[in-house]
Amino acid sequence: MRVYLKTILTVTALFFIGACGAQSATELAWRKVALNNSVLLTLPHGKVVIELAPQFAPKHVSQFRELTKQGFYDGTKFYRVIDGFVAQAGPKDGSKKDQSVALLAMEAEFKVTENWTYTPVQNQDLFAEHTGFKDSFALAYKKAKNTHESKAWLTHCPGTLAMARNNEADSASSHFYFVIGQAPRYLDGIMSIFGRVVYGMQHIQAIQRTAVIEGDDAVDPSRFTQIMSMQLMSDVAKVDQIHLEVENTEATAFAERLVKRRDRDNDFFYKKPPPVLDVCQIPIRSRLIN
Amino acid sequence: MRVYLKTILTVTALFFIGACGAQSATELAWRKVALNNSVLLTLPHGKVVIELAPQFAPKHVSQFRELTKQGFYDGTKFYRVIDGFVAQAGPKDGSKKDQSVALLAMEAEFKVTENWTYTPVQNQDLFAEHTGFKDSFALAYKKAKNTHESKAWLTHCPGTLAMARNNEADSASSHFYFVIGQAPRYLDGIMSIFGRVVYGMQHIQAIQRTAVIEGDDAVDPSRFTQIMSMQLMSDVAKVDQIHLEVENTEATAFAERLVKRRDRDNDFFYKKPPPVLDVCQIPIRSRLIN
Repeated sequence: MRVYLKTILTVTALFFIGACGAQSATELAWRKVALNNSVLLTLPHGKVVIELAPQFAPKHVSQFRELTKQGFYDGTKFYRVIDGFVAQAGPKDGSKKDQSVALLAMEAEFKVTENWTYTPVQNQDLFAEHTGFKDSFALAYKKAKNTHESKAWLTHCPGTLAMARNNEADSASSHFYFVIGQAPRYLDGIMSIFGRVVYGMQHIQAIQRTAVIEGDDAVDPSRFTQIMSMQLMSDVAKVDQIHLEVENTEATAFAERLVKRRDRDNDFFYKKPPPVLDVCQIPIRSRLIN
Repeated sequence: MRVYLKTILTVTALFFIGACGAQSATELAWRKVALNNSVLLTLPHGKVVIELAPQFAPKHVSQFRELTKQGFYDGTKFYRVIDGFVAQAGPKDGSKKDQSVALLAMEAEFKVTENWTYTPVQNQDLFAEHTGFKDSFALAYKKAKNTHESKAWLTHCPGTLAMARNNEADSASSHFYFVIGQAPRYLDGIMSIFGRVVYGMQHIQAIQRTAVIEGDDAVDPSRFTQIMSMQLMSDVAKVDQIHLEVENTEATAFAERLVKRRDRDNDFFYKKPPPVLDVCQIPIRSRLIN
């Protein structure tokens, strides 16, 4: 697997060298998060930044972006928060506001062409034949015999943002959830993931749980965590904007980090773990820039 | 796999039926957490209960229990808290208090005999040949050709409590950590797990992070989360004791829940996920009792 990865990288690097005068995609270890593709979620206890994924779920991003611009989410609450699982928010179920929003067609999977590339992480993951990254998003990939039918889908890792839905596939509208626990990979491919947390995940983890165990006092809805505001970062006053870069998962530096992470070649590992990687257990770094 | 599971259960059930007049282990869906085997961790923002695992890591539990009785942890801080990874606490590094504690021999793995049983969850997990549960603890199992060499080990799922160490295998003493993110399974078998959170995991998730991203302000140590007190539940004043039951993972009811969880036989799953289970993505329920 390691050899395979290195071969791919060398080929990719050769392809990019000389393609342009500036640094190529594989050389840049970091990439800017575009302000018009990032969202500032202000909670009572802290600020969170989401990067949207229009390249993977264009209609979901478009609708979420539009609702965000309207101030639709301001004042709504996280009404379904289950420790180790998800934190879900949205308008009051069945309210006029809730029903005012158009339903969305599922965008969980996307077809990929024969020359599609991604940064491979692991073959024969428990849930998928291949896992890896594309544009800093964790994904799974299935190559079909008929290459026209090959497909990929974003995976439910912690920090993932997806649209909730009813039982019907095409029933998402405005309710969304963050994954806050061990990756519920059984939801992969049947929920539309359209973003991920790139800053302030600890504040998502601190959202008030609404589910309690048997015998415990119910949580009064007045204690549910409220969204103070949800804004496109490009609409935020300049002084309050949060400028971020995230690791470029297409970079050789990132691929080298994967190799190191798999090797565990340091003294702490007096006995080596299996040389495998869980795509949801690879932190993608962010950093603040001026 | 499902058939295999059912077979085992039937055999186990037959074995227990008639063994005693009272309800057998496989019939009881819940089991009490013994007060002298549970620990009350009081944080500034909430109460947490840990169940210890003396059957898997006797020396670690013994030392942790002794230190807890002494009030050793009261006032210590979570000084290494990395979102998505671990929350680690202990006395000041290199302090007299720190150095006063004996080093512990590794207790990450344990040998199992031929007639050892566990509740199987998944074969060919990414990290282990077999995973399952024993006494409500998630574990992995490796059957050796020479059955005397078969072994099992607790796995690093969210909520797991383990002892930190230096590079040497037998260098743990008093510093401990909770897993707060996607299971870092690469630590399985090389760290001594000796307990797990059975109540108040949301408060562990709300512990102040000490690690920040590049460009962000460092967190002043005065903001680190302090342990108000750590007490054996049996030493807590009766009025403040928290009495819990946890799901009995040896029960037929639990095995049936696993089958359902694998099947996903409800309308929400308009397309079925792979019939696999991640042992760290199975919530083991707790409930409060009077």
